[in-house]
Amino acid sequence: MKVGLIGLGKMGLSLGQQMLEKGHEVTAYDVNPDAIEVIAGCGAKKAESLVELVSMLQSPRVLWLMVPHTHVDTVLEELLPLLASGDIVVEAGNSHYKESIRRANRFKEYGILYLDAGTSGGMEGARHGACYMVGGDPQAWRVVEPIIRDTAVENGYLYTGQSGSGHFLKMIHNGIEYGMMAAIGEGFEVLEKSEFDYDFEKVAAVWNNGSVIRSWLMELTERAFSKDANLDEIKGVMHSSGEGKWTLETALDMQVATPVIAMSLLMRYRSLETDTFSGKVVAALRNEFGGHAVEKKE
Amino acid sequence: MKVGLIGLGKMGLSLGQQMLEKGHEVTAYDVNPDAIEVIAGCGAKKAESLVELVSMLQSPRVLWLMVPHTHVDTVLEELLPLLASGDIVVEAGNSHYKESIRRANRFKEYGILYLDAGTSGGMEGARHGACYMVGGDPQAWRVVEPIIRDTAVENGYLYTGQSGSGHFLKMIHNGIEYGMMAAIGEGFEVLEKSEFDYDFEKVAAVWNNGSVIRSWLMELTERAFSKDANLDEIKGVMHSSGEGKWTLETALDMQVATPVIAMSLLMRYRSLETDTFSGKVVAALRNEFGGHAVEKKE
Amino acid sequence: MKVGLIGLGKMGLSLGQQMLEKGHEVTAYDVNPDAIEVIAGCGAKKAESLVELVSMLQSPRVLWLMVPHTHVDTVLEELLPLLASGDIVVEAGNSHYKESIRRANRFKEYGILYLDAGTSGGMEGARHGACYMVGGDPQAWRVVEPIIRDTAVENGYLYTGQSGSGHFLKMIHNGIEYGMMAAIGEGFEVLEKSEFDYDFEKVAAVWNNGSVIRSWLMELTERAFSKDANLDEIKGVMHSSGEGKWTLETALDMQVATPVIAMSLLMRYRSLETDTFSGKVVAALRNEFGGHAVEKKE
Amino acid sequence: MKVGLIGLGKMGLSLGQQMLEKGHEVTAYDVNPDAIEVIAGCGAKKAESLVELVSMLQSPRVLWLMVPHTHVDTVLEELLPLLASGDIVVEAGNSHYKESIRRANRFKEYGILYLDAGTSGGMEGARHGACYMVGGDPQAWRVVEPIIRDTAVENGYLYTGQSGSGHFLKMIHNGIEYGMMAAIGEGFEVLEKSEFDYDFEKVAAVWNNGSVIRSWLMELTERAFSKDANLDEIKGVMHSSGEGKWTLETALDMQVATPVIAMSLLMRYRSLETDTFSGKVVAALRNEFGGHAVEKKE
Repeated sequence: MKVGLIGLGKMGLSLGQQMLEKGHEVTAYDVNPDAIEVIAGCGAKKAESLVELVSMLQSPRVLWLMVPHTHVDTVLEELLPLLASGDIVVEAGNSHYKESIRRANRFKEYGILYLDAGTSGGMEGARHGACYMVGGDPQAWRVVEPIIRDTAVENGYLYTGQSGSGHFLKMIHNGIEYGMMAAIGEGFEVLEKSEFDYDFEKVAAVWNNGSVIRSWLMELTERAFSKDANLDEIKGVMHSSGEGKWTLETALDMQVATPVIAMSLLMRYRSLETDTFSGKVVAALRNEFGGHAVEKKE
Repeated sequence: MKVGLIGLGKMGLSLGQQMLEKGHEVTAYDVNPDAIEVIAGCGAKKAESLVELVSMLQSPRVLWLMVPHTHVDTVLEELLPLLASGDIVVEAGNSHYKESIRRANRFKEYGILYLDAGTSGGMEGARHGACYMVGGDPQAWRVVEPIIRDTAVENGYLYTGQSGSGHFLKMIHNGIEYGMMAAIGEGFEVLEKSEFDYDFEKVAAVWNNGSVIRSWLMELTERAFSKDANLDEIKGVMHSSGEGKWTLETALDMQVATPVIAMSLLMRYRSLETDTFSGKVVAALRNEFGGHAVEKKE
Repeated sequence: MKVGLIGLGKMGLSLGQQMLEKGHEVTAYDVNPDAIEVIAGCGAKKAESLVELVSMLQSPRVLWLMVPHTHVDTVLEELLPLLASGDIVVEAGNSHYKESIRRANRFKEYGILYLDAGTSGGMEGARHGACYMVGGDPQAWRVVEPIIRDTAVENGYLYTGQSGSGHFLKMIHNGIEYGMMAAIGEGFEVLEKSEFDYDFEKVAAVWNNGSVIRSWLMELTERAFSKDANLDEIKGVMHSSGEGKWTLETALDMQVATPVIAMSLLMRYRSLETDTFSGKVVAALRNEFGGHAVEKKE
Repeated sequence: MKVGLIGLGKMGLSLGQQMLEKGHEVTAYDVNPDAIEVIAGCGAKKAESLVELVSMLQSPRVLWLMVPHTHVDTVLEELLPLLASGDIVVEAGNSHYKESIRRANRFKEYGILYLDAGTSGGMEGARHGACYMVGGDPQAWRVVEPIIRDTAVENGYLYTGQSGSGHFLKMIHNGIEYGMMAAIGEGFEVLEKSEFDYDFEKVAAVWNNGSVIRSWLMELTERAFSKDANLDEIKGVMHSSGEGKWTLETALDMQVATPVIAMSLLMRYRSLETDTFSGKVVAALRNEFGGHAVEKKE
C-alpha cells in the first residue's frame, strides 16, 4: 500500500527500508535531507516538505509518523491543516498514551483517523520484523493492518482497542523491560564480584540455551559480552528516554505497587551521579553521632 | 553411560526418563517405592536402597543426586561409606554453593570426585533438554560431560570451574529469574488496573513475537493466561524455595547493590501476609499526628 | 492582628483556637455551619459566606486558607473577585508547590499578595504551636510574620523565599516523614515476628530516652502502643493524602534516586490490596515452569 | 559499684568517664596503654592485662566489655578461665544477637552470668547518658541495674528478658536508624537539586521545632550543616558497620518484608562504587537493541 513516512531516524529509516522490501510504496520525508537521500536510494519517493509529502499522496492517505516523542506535536500541528477527512495518521513513536488520546480526539474533530502504534523490537525489529501494539480508530485499523502485518514478525502485532491503548501497552512493555534489564545487570554484577572466574559471554550463552531466563535480552547480553568480554570500554551510566518513568508515574496514579520497576528506574538516575547529596548527609550523620570518619573530597 | 540416579521427584523422574531415552543405563532409587516403579516402567533398573544402588554399579561409579536441598546431607552421609575412591557424585539439585564447596572438600578426602550441577529449564527441561551449570573436579567433568551433553539442549551446558561455581551460577540465575518474573507481574498488574480492556493472553503472545521482552518466561505467561484468562482461580501468594534469598544474602556479603532482586524477594514475603504489623504502626501514627482515621479490624 | 480564617476542619479549627488564645482577632468561615459555631464559641467572629467574610475585614486584608488541597482552587476563584489590591492570601494547606506558584502568579496580576505556607506538627501543632515553612511575596511575609510567629513553636517557622518554596519544603518534609514512619513500622514488624517477647510500648519508650532514633514519631509510636499494646484493633491499611506521591514524582522529574521514599509510598499502595495481580502472575509462572503448587481461591 | 571495664575506644572511654563521674569505681584495661592512661587520669584504676584486671576485682565481679564486635570472642576466651562462678559479664558492644545467645550459654556452663547490652546514643550518650537495651540473666540484671541506671538518661534503659533480646533490639534500632537517615538524606537531595535556594541548616532547624519529623537525627543534621553549609567537604560514601545488614538478614530469615531498611542498606553499598557492572550491562543492552549511545571510559 501507499504510505507517507515522516521521520527517518534509526527506527524510521529501518522501517521504511522494510516497507519497501515488502512491496509497499513509501513516500518519505525527514528534516534531515541526507536521510531522505538514503531511503530514496532504497526506492522511496522523496518529499522535501510535509506539504509536498501530503500532496504526493491521495486521500484517503496513510501518514506514518516515526519521530521523537518531543517532536510529535510540532509535526502534527503542521500536518493537520494539510490533511483531509478520512486520512489516517499512524503515530508509531514512543508517545505518552494520554498525549495519544488527546491527539486522537483532536484529529477526530477533523474526521482524521488516528492510530497510536507502540513499536518494539529495536532497530533490528524495525528492519526485519517489528512487534506492534496498536490502539485507536477501528476503521483505520482495518485499512492499515496489511502494512502492519507485513512489517511485523509473524503474529507480532495486536490491535488493542480504544485510543491510547497501544501506547499504554508499549509503555508497560518498556517498564517490564527496565525491570528485566536491571535484574540481568544485578545478576552479572554479583558474578563479577564473586570469588569465581566466569566467562560472561559463555554464561549468557548457556542461559540462552534451555534455562528459565532465556530471552532476547539475554541474547543481547551474550552479544554485548562477545564484543567486550568484561565491558571494560563502557561506563555504567544508564540513560533513559522516558517510558520507564511514565510507567512508574502511571502506577502511582493507579496506586499500584511496582517496586521492581521503580528501583530499576531509580538506579538509572543514581547512575547519572558520581556522588550524591543523600550520601553526604548520611555520612555526616554517622560522623555526628558515632564519630565515624567521613571520606573527604580531594 | 551407567548412572545411579538418586531422587525421583518432579525433576529427577523427568531427567531419568530423558537419560533412558538417550540410551543411558539408569539404576534408580528413591525413598518412595512408587516413584521407582514408574521409572522402572521406563526401563530403569530398580534399587531398593542406597546400599543396593551402589552395589549394582561398578567403580568408578557415577551417582547423580536430584533431591531437595534440605535432604542432600542426609543422602550424602549415607552414601559416603558405600563409595570408593574414584567414584563421582553429581549433585544436581539446588544447593547453596557454600554447602557444595564444603561437601566437595569432604568427599575429596576420600578420593571421591564431586560436581555441583545447577539445573535449569524446569520440568520440561529435565524431560526434554535441560540447561546445566557445572562446577567441581575437572577430571570428573570429563567423565560426566557426555551424559550432561545428551540431556541438555544444544549448547545448554557450561563447565564453570572450581567447586561451588556451578551452584553459584544457578543461584544467580534464579535471582535474575525472580527479578524478571516480578517485572512481568508488575507490568500486568498495571494493565489489569488500567482503563483499557486487554486480553492478557494476547498481550503476552504479541510480546513473544518480536518484542524486546520476548522470553521463555513470557511464553509461560502466555500459557498461564491461556488456561485462566484473568487468573481468577489462584491467589497471588508467592512462595519461594530459597535461591532468591541466597542471592540477596550473597550480594549483601559482597556489598553489591541489588535492589531489583531484593524487592522481588521482599514482595514475595509480603504476599504471604494478609495484614502487616508494619502497616498497623504506620496507620496508628497517621492517626496520632493527623487524626487520620484507621481501619478497624472486623 | 485581624485575620479571616477560611476552613475549620481538624487543622483550621485548632489553629483558629490558638490564634484567638494568642490575642488575634479571627473572623471565620466554613461550609459547615456547625464548625463556625464552635469557633465562635471560642471568641471568633462569624461569617456566613466568603462574601460576608471579606466584607467584615478591611483592606489590606489577611485571608488564611486552611482547606483540603482539592478545594483550594474553588475557594480562591470565589475569593478573587472579592479582594482588593494589597490584600494578602495565606494558603496554609497541603497544596502542590506548582499549584501555589500558578496561584501566586494569578493573584499577583490583581495586586493580591500570596503566601504558600506549609504547616507541620499535626493537630497538636495547630492547637499549641505549629511549624511553618512559608514561601511567597516578601512584603506579605513581613505583614504576616507576627501571627505566624505567635502560632508557631519557638523558632518553628522559616521564610523560604520565592513562591512555591514553602509548599515544596513541606512536601519534602512529608516525604521524609513517609520514610521515617515506614522504617519504624518495619522495625516493629521484625520485633513482632521475632522469638523474643517485647513490650512494644516500653521499647518505644526506651528508644525515646537517649537513643539515636528518639523522635516525635517515636513518641507517637509509644503513645499508640500505650492505647493498644499490640495494635490488635486496627488494620494495617496505610492511606495517603498525596504529598509522598508528589515527593516521588518531583524526584523523578529531577532524576533524583529516592528509593526509601519510593518504597515507603509503594508499600502504602500495596497495603490497600488483599491480593495482587502481580502475585498471581508470579505464582502462575512458578507453577508453569517448576510445577510449584499455587494457592487456590476459596 | 565496682566494675572492670574492658575496651577504651570512643565508646568505652566516654562511658568509663561517665561511670567515674557518677561515683562508680572503674578498673580499666585496653590493648592500647595510652587509652588506659587517659582514663586513669580521670580516676580509674589501671590494669595492664586482663589477668591483672580480674585479679584486681573480687568475686562476684562485674566485667563490662566495650570492644569491637569482631574482638569479643577473643577477649571472652581469654577472660573465661580467669573468672569464677557468679561473676557477671556485661557485653555492651554491637554483637549479633545469635552470638550473644551462644556466648551466654557457654558462660552459663561455668556459672558465669551474661548480659547482652545494646547501647545507643552515640558518643554523647556514652559520655552523658546512654540508652540501654539489656537481655540475659535476670539475677545479673538485678546486680547491674544500678550502674546501668546511673549511666543512662532518665528512663533510658530497658531489661528485655532472655539472652540475645538486648542485642536483637539494638540491631532493630539500628535498622530503623538506617531507614530514617536515608529518608533524611533523600529529602535533602531533592531540596538540593530543586529550583529553590534553601539554607539547609535553617531547614533542619525549623524541622526540629514543631514539625512531625523533629528528631535527634534531624538535630544532628542541623549541626552537620552548621559546620559545612553544603557538605562540600565530604564525599557521600556511606560505610556501614554491620547492624543494618544483620537487620535485613534477620528479616529475610523471618520472611518479613522490610523494603525501606533494605534500600537504605543497598544504597550504602551502591555509594561505595563509582561505577557499577550492573550499569554497564544495562547500558550495553540499551545500545544493542536501540542503538542508544554508551558513555565510554576515558
